[in-house]
Amino acid sequence: MSDTHEYIGMPRDEIDTPVLLVDLPALEANIHKLADHFRATGKNLRPHTKSHKTPAIAQLQLAAGAQGITCAKVGEAEAMADAGIQDILIANEVIGRRKIERLMDLASRCDIMVAVDHPQNLQDLDAAAAARGVRPRVLVEVNIGHNRCGVQPAAVVELARAAQAAENLRFCGLMGYEGHVIDLEDKDERDGGCHQCIQRLVDARADIEAAGLPCQICSASGTGDYYISTSFDGITEVQAGSYALMDAAYGRLNLGFDNALTVLTTVTSRPSPEQVITDAGLKSLTPEHGFPPVKNRPDLECHALSEEHGRLKTVAGPCTDLQPGDLLEFIPGHGCTTINLHDRLYAVRDGRLAAIWEVAGRGKVR
Amino acid sequence: MSDTHEYIGMPRDEIDTPVLLVDLPALEANIHKLADHFRATGKNLRPHTKSHKTPAIAQLQLAAGAQGITCAKVGEAEAMADAGIQDILIANEVIGRRKIERLMDLASRCDIMVAVDHPQNLQDLDAAAAARGVRPRVLVEVNIGHNRCGVQPAAVVELARAAQAAENLRFCGLMGYEGHVIDLEDKDERDGGCHQCIQRLVDARADIEAAGLPCQICSASGTGDYYISTSFDGITEVQAGSYALMDAAYGRLNLGFDNALTVLTTVTSRPSPEQVITDAGLKSLTPEHGFPPVKNRPDLECHALSEEHGRLKTVAGPCTDLQPGDLLEFIPGHGCTTINLHDRLYAVRDGRLAAIWEVAGRGKVR
Repeated sequence: MSDTHEYIGMPRDEIDTPVLLVDLPALEANIHKLADHFRATGKNLRPHTKSHKTPAIAQLQLAAGAQGITCAKVGEAEAMADAGIQDILIANEVIGRRKIERLMDLASRCDIMVAVDHPQNLQDLDAAAAARGVRPRVLVEVNIGHNRCGVQPAAVVELARAAQAAENLRFCGLMGYEGHVIDLEDKDERDGGCHQCIQRLVDARADIEAAGLPCQICSASGTGDYYISTSFDGITEVQAGSYALMDAAYGRLNLGFDNALTVLTTVTSRPSPEQVITDAGLKSLTPEHGFPPVKNRPDLECHALSEEHGRLKTVAGPCTDLQPGDLLEFIPGHGCTTINLHDRLYAVRDGRLAAIWEVAGRGKVR
Repeated sequence: MSDTHEYIGMPRDEIDTPVLLVDLPALEANIHKLADHFRATGKNLRPHTKSHKTPAIAQLQLAAGAQGITCAKVGEAEAMADAGIQDILIANEVIGRRKIERLMDLASRCDIMVAVDHPQNLQDLDAAAAARGVRPRVLVEVNIGHNRCGVQPAAVVELARAAQAAENLRFCGLMGYEGHVIDLEDKDERDGGCHQCIQRLVDARADIEAAGLPCQICSASGTGDYYISTSFDGITEVQAGSYALMDAAYGRLNLGFDNALTVLTTVTSRPSPEQVITDAGLKSLTPEHGFPPVKNRPDLECHALSEEHGRLKTVAGPCTDLQPGDLLEFIPGHGCTTINLHDRLYAVRDGRLAAIWEVAGRGKVR
């Protein structure tokens, strides 16, 4: 439940902290910038919503031209389907009796698509679809170098053939994910690595087409390399997600998107002139991609996060302008996991609260 | 909402994953072990509930003899007060108009106590208490070496005097937190550091008593050093929290408590005989205190966590017994932040689901 003292139009600086703010003009600019690229290249954008987990943002992306969305988990897809979204890819293997049942429930109310990389899973999906009287879409996931999930390229044709033969599944094509190179800060290294991975996926597409199998969809990539994958004829769609809100880690890649996501935080203690303590720690933002920069305060550096405290030090000399009660903004290192800590996003325009959005996919790991 | 296919008594291995399991006999043993220590030493235990955030566990701790509880945030205290818990310390400064209003609402329905380290905050609390017609308890927080919050020892008497003079507040004493040494793995180093910090707090107590001020409560410490603080005459209570469920980081300290918390996870992919991929990643458990050990599987090592994938490798040679759909258990590196990712804890006894507990304080960072 949001605080009953909150109202649309209230000044940003009166929202209780710590709280996740969305700079609405920056979000809109990011969405339109990428939509323009996809219009120009004639490719489909299927935004990955694991990052924002927020139906309201998915709707903005669809309104701007995205053809469908991507989710990581069945629970996320359920949250998006509850908001009326129809074309959903779960870019992940769905394993286990109960989860497959839920997937088939989803197939009865939206046009779900799921990744497979194992013949037994394919059989389980086919049997569950038959039992439920549905016919979901499947993509064969190819290991294009990430070595996490996906069949080896040499085994793609065999699994694709089995998928095509499964009576209760609609085989639609292939997907891959180059997660090990997609966020490399060195652009040449990133571009080279991603190019090599996408080539593997496009080669796999050629293999299954040579075997007489269709490939309506060939899906890959994200915010760090969308411009590479859209340059390949064989790629039909891209799963970019972080571009909408961005974070400090993707910000370092200088991709031309604005940081639209910050944690508004209150100074709670000043143990010394060189130290500032705030009320946002590990339970408000995540550290795995680095401590958060402080927006518009190059004189301050976050050097540690306790569970409920951000610990800042001055870069040079004492800081005299901050007292307990003053506000600062952190730019999260990793937006995807940071948003997953929060129940709501607070969208701000012109210094005032413009909308409160439910992060309906928050915590939906199952 | 929990899955409608779940029921008390169902086999543990049929609970959908990833899911946080509590080994109920281990939890009970931990609670009783520490309760026995506090009975024997005649000190009060005020368990910190920031770790489990779960009223059902707080009630077990109170039933075993704890005299009250500790929270980190107003929102956590609200969740605990909603469950009927009365004696609550917020071991943190509460800063900001809206949060102080909520604190005074709490004071009207439970016996709340809060930390202060700044004269302006003391004035704000006093004024808000007067406006609301309540009289909450306050402890002056002393910086005993952690350098995060708290007044310097030399300034304690002045702030304690101001707290005692505040007409609408009940000054009850002091608190401190030795967070920089409490989890050192080297026992001699940890014991020495904690002893020094607790001595500073006890010295501060002597200072305010010499100035004619009362000190009914002197509160500090946690799971890593409770046995040190209870050896001091001047300490009245301890804020230990992690002992109840434990985690891999505290497990390395060999404190005699059992690991009662695991993440049940399903194998989702086997990219090679040396690799195992599971469905629990950074959105199911946190990495800041190290990757999670795999319970009862010394042959497997977690070497990376993606957002929704645990990535394991074999320690020596191929692993042949695991297929997609098989179950493993991770022992979280950091229980406090891991539990904060989940809406529910699944308590298990004798291989069957014994209770589903709401993590009512989850996400209550405000």
